[in-house]
Amino acid sequence: MKKKRIVLALGHNALGTNLPRQQEAVQKSAKAVADFAMEDYEIVITHSNGPQVGMIHTAMSEFAMRHEAYTPTPMSVASAMSQGYIGYDLQNAIHSELILRGISRSVATILTQVRVDPYDEAFYRPSKIIGRLLTEEEALTEEKKGNHVTATEGGFRRIVATPVPLEIVEIDVIRSLLDRGTLVIACGGGGIPVIAQGNRLKGASAVIEKDTAAGALADAVDADMLVILTGVDKVMTGYGTEDERPVDYMSVAQASEYLEAGEFEEGTMAPKIRAAISFIGNSPIRKALITRLAPEGIELSGANGTMIGLK
Amino acid sequence: MKKKRIVLALGHNALGTNLPRQQEAVQKSAKAVADFAMEDYEIVITHSNGPQVGMIHTAMSEFAMRHEAYTPTPMSVASAMSQGYIGYDLQNAIHSELILRGISRSVATILTQVRVDPYDEAFYRPSKIIGRLLTEEEALTEEKKGNHVTATEGGFRRIVATPVPLEIVEIDVIRSLLDRGTLVIACGGGGIPVIAQGNRLKGASAVIEKDTAAGALADAVDADMLVILTGVDKVMTGYGTEDERPVDYMSVAQASEYLEAGEFEEGTMAPKIRAAISFIGNSPIRKALITRLAPEGIELSGANGTMIGLK
Repeated sequence: MKKKRIVLALGHNALGTNLPRQQEAVQKSAKAVADFAMEDYEIVITHSNGPQVGMIHTAMSEFAMRHEAYTPTPMSVASAMSQGYIGYDLQNAIHSELILRGISRSVATILTQVRVDPYDEAFYRPSKIIGRLLTEEEALTEEKKGNHVTATEGGFRRIVATPVPLEIVEIDVIRSLLDRGTLVIACGGGGIPVIAQGNRLKGASAVIEKDTAAGALADAVDADMLVILTGVDKVMTGYGTEDERPVDYMSVAQASEYLEAGEFEEGTMAPKIRAAISFIGNSPIRKALITRLAPEGIELSGANGTMIGLK
Repeated sequence: MKKKRIVLALGHNALGTNLPRQQEAVQKSAKAVADFAMEDYEIVITHSNGPQVGMIHTAMSEFAMRHEAYTPTPMSVASAMSQGYIGYDLQNAIHSELILRGISRSVATILTQVRVDPYDEAFYRPSKIIGRLLTEEEALTEEKKGNHVTATEGGFRRIVATPVPLEIVEIDVIRSLLDRGTLVIACGGGGIPVIAQGNRLKGASAVIEKDTAAGALADAVDADMLVILTGVDKVMTGYGTEDERPVDYMSVAQASEYLEAGEFEEGTMAPKIRAAISFIGNSPIRKALITRLAPEGIELSGANGTMIGLK
């Protein structure tokens, strides 16, 4: 019988924002992954890199400013570095947890590039906030370098484009490792965004939304379930109002309606719902689960989360 | 028939020292890799990370000093980041070159950890220079942090231990991708050095000599040939003296004798020779080639390099 395949998308809460917190947070994520591994699922783990890629990009830029032998590090390279930075801790924590439980399955982090369209309209309307708070002076410097900034509470932040993923370049490698039972960490931070120029792939100054990438990845490996971890147990309608209500189950049609009606916040819940809808498509088999990483693990029945399915 | 398997170790010359030079240098390395891919070899590419890991480690340390929410980045994490930093450019360049030649083989970078012995005597005698030149004040600061420094021309440099590799943690993933024809980039910078503590792997403050790691990798994947690229065409005896002579071929016994006699410089040629000897062991099949990456590519017959074999 074909084994069940899961794509697990870890958010900020499952990763922490600095290195000691990351190393603590990945322990919990590793336990959830090992739970699935014990049930013999084929597993791909993907993760956000928001705080990490911003920190790396800023650290490398500041270094290049002070040492003239070096040039600034493009966002695509910072993204590649963040896959190493996070993947190492994550694969290590999973590896330990598997050994502890006597499961002999390997874990591997695949440096993943994701091709985007150079004419994606997102490039004309950058919206994703990255990196730390900037002073007005720093914001002006960024704009002079051709980067985009936006005014925010207490100062300014850099913003980049979030184009949609067209193709996961290393997908066949990911598939073949899954087939043999390896737990694969891939598409970290939404993948390294690249655009095709002739026979070459060129890094794009962008960040691919990690939930969108997780949906594309789940589709490409033909997963049975996409599990998106977030900070709340269940998706809410009327979020932040008196009519706030948790959703146990939504059909794709209902989810689309709620989305249309603006029930879900852009930048947080809306992309998760879109990823779920896009992954499920018109498959009667595929399911998406949006939930929190609870201390007792992840309940795949959806008891502690919101399940989305075709009907 | 079983396909021939090659491990190709790229040195500084094949990688450059900063990002624009790295992106230029990997184009040439990619051509050599594609030459082998056309001949249907199974290929693992490994690479040094000397300048890169030093730069990343310094950039992240300086960032943590200025921003108190962050802690310094350990050498093991910097090593993981360098695998992303270099692997991304390298896999991209190889990918482009394969497309250009109409070869449909995939390329993947595997984040690789290498287990070392916590009691390796190298930890008591750190010797590997990393990072940029330090002032006396900076050197004192490093020593206060528990790091080792050494006086050198024009100032001070940080030095770390170079323990021997015991086990490549992700070896089965590397092997399985090789089996299916994927070109694998692995053990970058000698691999992320880790030590086992119970069921956990813990990052070690060390750098594994990349030639030693390449030898261990070639042995572990049972390669037919280990190709170590360096800055000279051939290994020399009497290097830097009037009796300097290029070596076309050496048996393992001859190589060991020369090594004993101190013919090869520590830190540059000696570890390459040791890696070759250790890889060949007493196999009549295995060969090691030490050569330069020439514009016309790599001549596997050894015509432009030094070949080492059992007899």
